[in-house]
Amino acid sequence: MIPRYSRERMAAIWSPENRFRIWFEIEAHACDALADLGVIPVAAARALWEKGNKPYTKERIARIDAIEAEVRHDVIAFLTELAEHVGDNARFVHQGMTSSDVLDTCLAVQLTQAADLLLEDIEGLLAAFKARALEHKMTVCMGRSHGIHAEPVTLGLKFAGFHAEFHRARTRLLAARRDIATCAISGAVGTFANIDPRVEAHVARALGLEPEPLSTQVIPRDRHAAFFSTLAVIASSIERVAVEIRHLQRTEVGEAEEAFAKGQKGSSAMPHKRNPVLTENLTGLARMVRAYALPALENVALWHERDISHSAVERMIGPDATVTLDFALARLTNVIANLVVHPKAIERNIALTGGLMFSQRVLLALTQAGVSREDAYRLVQRNAMAVWDQGGTLLERLKADPDVTARLPAATLEPLFDLSVHTRHVDTIFDRVFAAS
Amino acid sequence: MIPRYSRERMAAIWSPENRFRIWFEIEAHACDALADLGVIPVAAARALWEKGNKPYTKERIARIDAIEAEVRHDVIAFLTELAEHVGDNARFVHQGMTSSDVLDTCLAVQLTQAADLLLEDIEGLLAAFKARALEHKMTVCMGRSHGIHAEPVTLGLKFAGFHAEFHRARTRLLAARRDIATCAISGAVGTFANIDPRVEAHVARALGLEPEPLSTQVIPRDRHAAFFSTLAVIASSIERVAVEIRHLQRTEVGEAEEAFAKGQKGSSAMPHKRNPVLTENLTGLARMVRAYALPALENVALWHERDISHSAVERMIGPDATVTLDFALARLTNVIANLVVHPKAIERNIALTGGLMFSQRVLLALTQAGVSREDAYRLVQRNAMAVWDQGGTLLERLKADPDVTARLPAATLEPLFDLSVHTRHVDTIFDRVFAAS
Amino acid sequence: MIPRYSRERMAAIWSPENRFRIWFEIEAHACDALADLGVIPVAAARALWEKGNKPYTKERIARIDAIEAEVRHDVIAFLTELAEHVGDNARFVHQGMTSSDVLDTCLAVQLTQAADLLLEDIEGLLAAFKARALEHKMTVCMGRSHGIHAEPVTLGLKFAGFHAEFHRARTRLLAARRDIATCAISGAVGTFANIDPRVEAHVARALGLEPEPLSTQVIPRDRHAAFFSTLAVIASSIERVAVEIRHLQRTEVGEAEEAFAKGQKGSSAMPHKRNPVLTENLTGLARMVRAYALPALENVALWHERDISHSAVERMIGPDATVTLDFALARLTNVIANLVVHPKAIERNIALTGGLMFSQRVLLALTQAGVSREDAYRLVQRNAMAVWDQGGTLLERLKADPDVTARLPAATLEPLFDLSVHTRHVDTIFDRVFAAS
Amino acid sequence: MIPRYSRERMAAIWSPENRFRIWFEIEAHACDALADLGVIPVAAARALWEKGNKPYTKERIARIDAIEAEVRHDVIAFLTELAEHVGDNARFVHQGMTSSDVLDTCLAVQLTQAADLLLEDIEGLLAAFKARALEHKMTVCMGRSHGIHAEPVTLGLKFAGFHAEFHRARTRLLAARRDIATCAISGAVGTFANIDPRVEAHVARALGLEPEPLSTQVIPRDRHAAFFSTLAVIASSIERVAVEIRHLQRTEVGEAEEAFAKGQKGSSAMPHKRNPVLTENLTGLARMVRAYALPALENVALWHERDISHSAVERMIGPDATVTLDFALARLTNVIANLVVHPKAIERNIALTGGLMFSQRVLLALTQAGVSREDAYRLVQRNAMAVWDQGGTLLERLKADPDVTARLPAATLEPLFDLSVHTRHVDTIFDRVFAAS
Repeated sequence: MIPRYSRERMAAIWSPENRFRIWFEIEAHACDALADLGVIPVAAARALWEKGNKPYTKERIARIDAIEAEVRHDVIAFLTELAEHVGDNARFVHQGMTSSDVLDTCLAVQLTQAADLLLEDIEGLLAAFKARALEHKMTVCMGRSHGIHAEPVTLGLKFAGFHAEFHRARTRLLAARRDIATCAISGAVGTFANIDPRVEAHVARALGLEPEPLSTQVIPRDRHAAFFSTLAVIASSIERVAVEIRHLQRTEVGEAEEAFAKGQKGSSAMPHKRNPVLTENLTGLARMVRAYALPALENVALWHERDISHSAVERMIGPDATVTLDFALARLTNVIANLVVHPKAIERNIALTGGLMFSQRVLLALTQAGVSREDAYRLVQRNAMAVWDQGGTLLERLKADPDVTARLPAATLEPLFDLSVHTRHVDTIFDRVFAAS
Repeated sequence: MIPRYSRERMAAIWSPENRFRIWFEIEAHACDALADLGVIPVAAARALWEKGNKPYTKERIARIDAIEAEVRHDVIAFLTELAEHVGDNARFVHQGMTSSDVLDTCLAVQLTQAADLLLEDIEGLLAAFKARALEHKMTVCMGRSHGIHAEPVTLGLKFAGFHAEFHRARTRLLAARRDIATCAISGAVGTFANIDPRVEAHVARALGLEPEPLSTQVIPRDRHAAFFSTLAVIASSIERVAVEIRHLQRTEVGEAEEAFAKGQKGSSAMPHKRNPVLTENLTGLARMVRAYALPALENVALWHERDISHSAVERMIGPDATVTLDFALARLTNVIANLVVHPKAIERNIALTGGLMFSQRVLLALTQAGVSREDAYRLVQRNAMAVWDQGGTLLERLKADPDVTARLPAATLEPLFDLSVHTRHVDTIFDRVFAAS
Repeated sequence: MIPRYSRERMAAIWSPENRFRIWFEIEAHACDALADLGVIPVAAARALWEKGNKPYTKERIARIDAIEAEVRHDVIAFLTELAEHVGDNARFVHQGMTSSDVLDTCLAVQLTQAADLLLEDIEGLLAAFKARALEHKMTVCMGRSHGIHAEPVTLGLKFAGFHAEFHRARTRLLAARRDIATCAISGAVGTFANIDPRVEAHVARALGLEPEPLSTQVIPRDRHAAFFSTLAVIASSIERVAVEIRHLQRTEVGEAEEAFAKGQKGSSAMPHKRNPVLTENLTGLARMVRAYALPALENVALWHERDISHSAVERMIGPDATVTLDFALARLTNVIANLVVHPKAIERNIALTGGLMFSQRVLLALTQAGVSREDAYRLVQRNAMAVWDQGGTLLERLKADPDVTARLPAATLEPLFDLSVHTRHVDTIFDRVFAAS
Repeated sequence: MIPRYSRERMAAIWSPENRFRIWFEIEAHACDALADLGVIPVAAARALWEKGNKPYTKERIARIDAIEAEVRHDVIAFLTELAEHVGDNARFVHQGMTSSDVLDTCLAVQLTQAADLLLEDIEGLLAAFKARALEHKMTVCMGRSHGIHAEPVTLGLKFAGFHAEFHRARTRLLAARRDIATCAISGAVGTFANIDPRVEAHVARALGLEPEPLSTQVIPRDRHAAFFSTLAVIASSIERVAVEIRHLQRTEVGEAEEAFAKGQKGSSAMPHKRNPVLTENLTGLARMVRAYALPALENVALWHERDISHSAVERMIGPDATVTLDFALARLTNVIANLVVHPKAIERNIALTGGLMFSQRVLLALTQAGVSREDAYRLVQRNAMAVWDQGGTLLERLKADPDVTARLPAATLEPLFDLSVHTRHVDTIFDRVFAAS
């Protein structure tokens, strides 16, 4: 997480202000429940809200840091500073709880906040894909397999495919959000020995979480592993879109292009450059989000009821993965919304290969005309290879091949070279994709 | 995937016999639909089932391999061999389809078959965890955070926690199974240009899959990335259990032990050794399954409508990840079912630290008695540290500390040292875990 | 490691025949040293060579497997079978040694054998790069940054760059080979308690290894982590070359192409396809070799003197990583040696952008003529953007721009558009690259 | 890279101040060479040093950021700001160069600076290992394989082993440093079209780098992949040491312990806790440094002469990997230097298993006495298993086993139970390890 690739809202989730605020709420809600249960005085719970419920200013944060430098324990430092505001009643705070109750529940809140922003980002991206898909629903362009011209598709289909992919991303992220949205207030090693499970139930409800069925002081880390792995899958989908655009912008292809801002410079040395730098950047950011899943997976096997090796990892990947993915989703949305399409280049590329894209149609017509699959393939292939190597069009060459015309005379061949068959099911596909969304 | 870590049923899914069988079914079901639609003669579809529907013997597989060596294309080799059995009608097979229709739909079938076995494995593992959890529901043992004695838990809680974790694994695997259970029969670059979408619908239904909303000749690889990432998370949970058992079996701990078979030898040099080799092995296998998720993630960003870089990866990780995970789940189930528990060692360890595990109870009692949290902590900590460093019991030391007894006289202190508080919510937790399962 | 992506010689290193052969040699050489030291009878050592030095046939391997099924220990099974051939003297074999002495030293032998084959592969690949580099040293082609035309390079420079990269790969692999070429015959927990260090020295010398300075029953796994990480870096370099060729073969670029065999078929549906399937395959294989480095890194932190979690990993990645990389290097060498270059396409692409590639020359000339860098950039950029968007050539547009001609009249502009400046240092670069090799 | 896990010196390398300073030096040294070659006026080069050679203050950095916001190009922003100080002569700066010349050479300088600090860190850690190794050279403690008591080692051997491992880390890091210490001033696409190679040679010499033999505008990324992979291997070695200490500190083991500071608190709930939090933290940090190697490997396959996907990755992992590793090495050095050793616990653990550790000695003696390996193993194993399961000592049980005493009478058995054989080669091993250092 570096400022260059951060957006304010997501970064704020990981600020000390937000973290300490959540810690405070956990403690205060827990005190409410403890007071209800008669474990601590009602006045103590009330005092906590009255005297402690104030913003975590820079001064307060600095004070907490100073205490931590001595006690080497962040939650104790937090509680000590809180006591300075709350006074004597502070001794009722955190009763029967352990630091992990605060830390893990806080992380759950932060990750759900982050997930909500990411879901919003995905909504925006889906809207951008949908708009461009509808705009270019029937913009016929060359489809490519292996980077080689195959048969025509439409530009709208590309966007629709991305829409479908990010719709799946949304479904997976919702599941991942559910996975990490649990609350643990179960005390040391998770036995509720000194805290009633009803406290957990109350805090969970207050924070919009589910109680963790079985915590062992910590919330089990398979949940977080699933969460960060899901982010890694989404990042990989971002990379897929980015790579598509980088390909379309290649000089020789030129079918689409990232918007180039007024005043922007593509290269310090070569003033003619207009580079797909945003999607290249997204490719790199995707690599990072993917990498962050690994330590999350290695965090699962904590020792016995818990060790704290996961903590350093999560202090880093919590912000790093969510901030980077948020930035990447927003950047991708901008790229898609502002992508410049070059219809002339699209047409030029379609015309590039002398109708080779219709080779399958001829193959099928030959087999329908009684030629074996093997022979039909050989007949079409030899004419197609000649087009690749010496130019001309496939139709001309087929017409000049007596082995072909013996089965398919020119009048039968010509109608096979018809772009419209490639778009006849676009509506069907769009219905499938956008009905679901 | 090596024989040492393979089980027959899962390995069979990845055999050429099963693969070619599935290819045949895809083609044959597609022909049925094509015949229904009047695209090919009904007799051709019938002939395919009649003449082609036979096992893929070693001879047939060798013949396919020989053809592939020439044409360098696996599906064409398959179709050519099939034509040798079916005769002239073979030219109607694969009409309007592309190899990926066969390959990707086949992979979907194989992965769902694999997922079903893995789900079965998990059921077995859940049963083993549940049995041991109930057996040891109230076997009090030391809970450890950071590898250091914390407060007591029960052995049953450990098993219950693993049950909860693998119940989540099951939920995630079901989602991952849904994610990869799609069928694409959409032809070159996925436009259905030469094949009616109703063919896909028919094949999907026949094979128990959903039609892929938008394929681009290939089924999008975010689905597979999500699938293999889910396996990686499950593997990490296996590692967690394995590490727990390795810890419990350590000589100094000795609370549980993998069953040691008659005739087994622990070390070629040291005849006294009984090592947790199964769970160490599981730790290693977990690393492998985790690693296989990475190339699956890198497979997502295929170029344009598709490239074939994913293929080599999937030929490897398809079998490797599923076979290894299947083996690991089965091995873990055996380990759990046969785990030898040593109650005496459990008791010895509980007694090891002179009642330090009750330190929190004293802390809470002091704060309830009006001591500030800070002061209470210091009072208990100084006595606890003396126990660590010089031995004795915490209760004795506290009784001898006038600063403590000023607030908590001996009669108040003694009842705090009571194991039963640590088990009073075990029922609650078991209800949560096993009600959900 | 699957047959499709394996070559015989490398796979043979990992066969049981080779493994047991190496185990035998380790034991037999150790016996020689033990006999020299008077620990065991000279006759016993001699008997071992005489009666035990025979090939590990299928029958012998089956016998070992059968014993292992009972004792669950591979080295003990091996020794037991060996005893059946050697008779009573067998009791002197393995004296004071532990299984890891055999296993780890054997792995070192196998990995050095593998490294030697990989080094041979790299030599072959370097030769292919060099030949193509010299052949195309002055074949001017378009250089591309960000996929966008930049300035010209030569095709030979591309090959020379790959040569330099694999020359570094060679250097790194030599270091990695040294890293894993150590021998440990140090007995249980590595203390030489029951075996003289001179035995280790003798075995090491006999097998071409160095004695491990400090083994703890196992050879430390940072060595293996470094080895497999090095393979991962080499795989990434393979991917780089593969991606370059896939780009050059794109339909719109068409500058080079994998050789297409007679009888080969590019697509079952589209007979016109000629796809870069070999380099796409290499891209996928590179992902696999990269993934195998991860578990090797996780293997480093074994518990105390050793645990056996690394073993399952190495049984898999030992063969998988080396066999796959060997196959990939050989495939890449073939691709490079047989790569078809299309000079016409290269020329066509150079001509594609109306001389934009000379924009830097004009920029420099303007600054030399006294224009500030900022103003010069703006002048050239605005004319270059017009070429991108509306066509024409940069030279024409500059000549028509009075702000430009005020500083650089046509006669000064024209000589700037000269390809030869881009090749004037090719000799220098070739000298650097090939002098070092 | 977060402040909690950062040290000032390493973080400073990645500050904008240092980066812009290095950029300035690259440009200024290049101008010197350009002036020498007569390409630009000597006065221009001189002016650059005179007017531009000033610290990059916050104000200057803010100004550069503001310009970048408009031109969206960091190096152009830097040059524009520099021109504001240097005046008209600024137009001679960066002549014939491209941004990557500045960026990649700067990264090389930063990574070598970072490598130098890491090498210093390793020196410090080696010294700590050596001191503790010598201190505990003959402190006999239990050696453990699989977490199970095996045979004795010495605590000094553990430290010596770590010393040997980090000595290898040092060697690898030196190689990795060489790998990334290259300079590229080769202009657009690396052809030196508009810049003489002698400029590169001059700048390289001035900055302590080697000229990159063949750059393609960028320095090839296999170098960086090798560098970050090397850091990942070192991190894994840190994890190994950390895991050892965490094990030794386990309550039941208790042989060593991280120093616990006065005023420190181990747990907010349990005042008795003293946890190995530093080494747990190191375990987590190791996971992060390992993860950073992955995107570095994925960066290798840049498109054609270069794309910019690597840039975002390196902006993150450049600081993150080096700062985290530097912090981890320093923390580990402190942990080692201050590690508290508990000799009584060591002795207690040695006594724990009734002399089972001598089982190998008895096995060997039996085979020397003419018993077959198989029979000897069975005899010792059955007595050893009885000790594990029912207690007592191995010696007693063997003496009571007539099958044993038939071959080895009590008088022969007793001397076998002698700790000193396990330390007789400690000197040899120390010589090997510390002679090499």
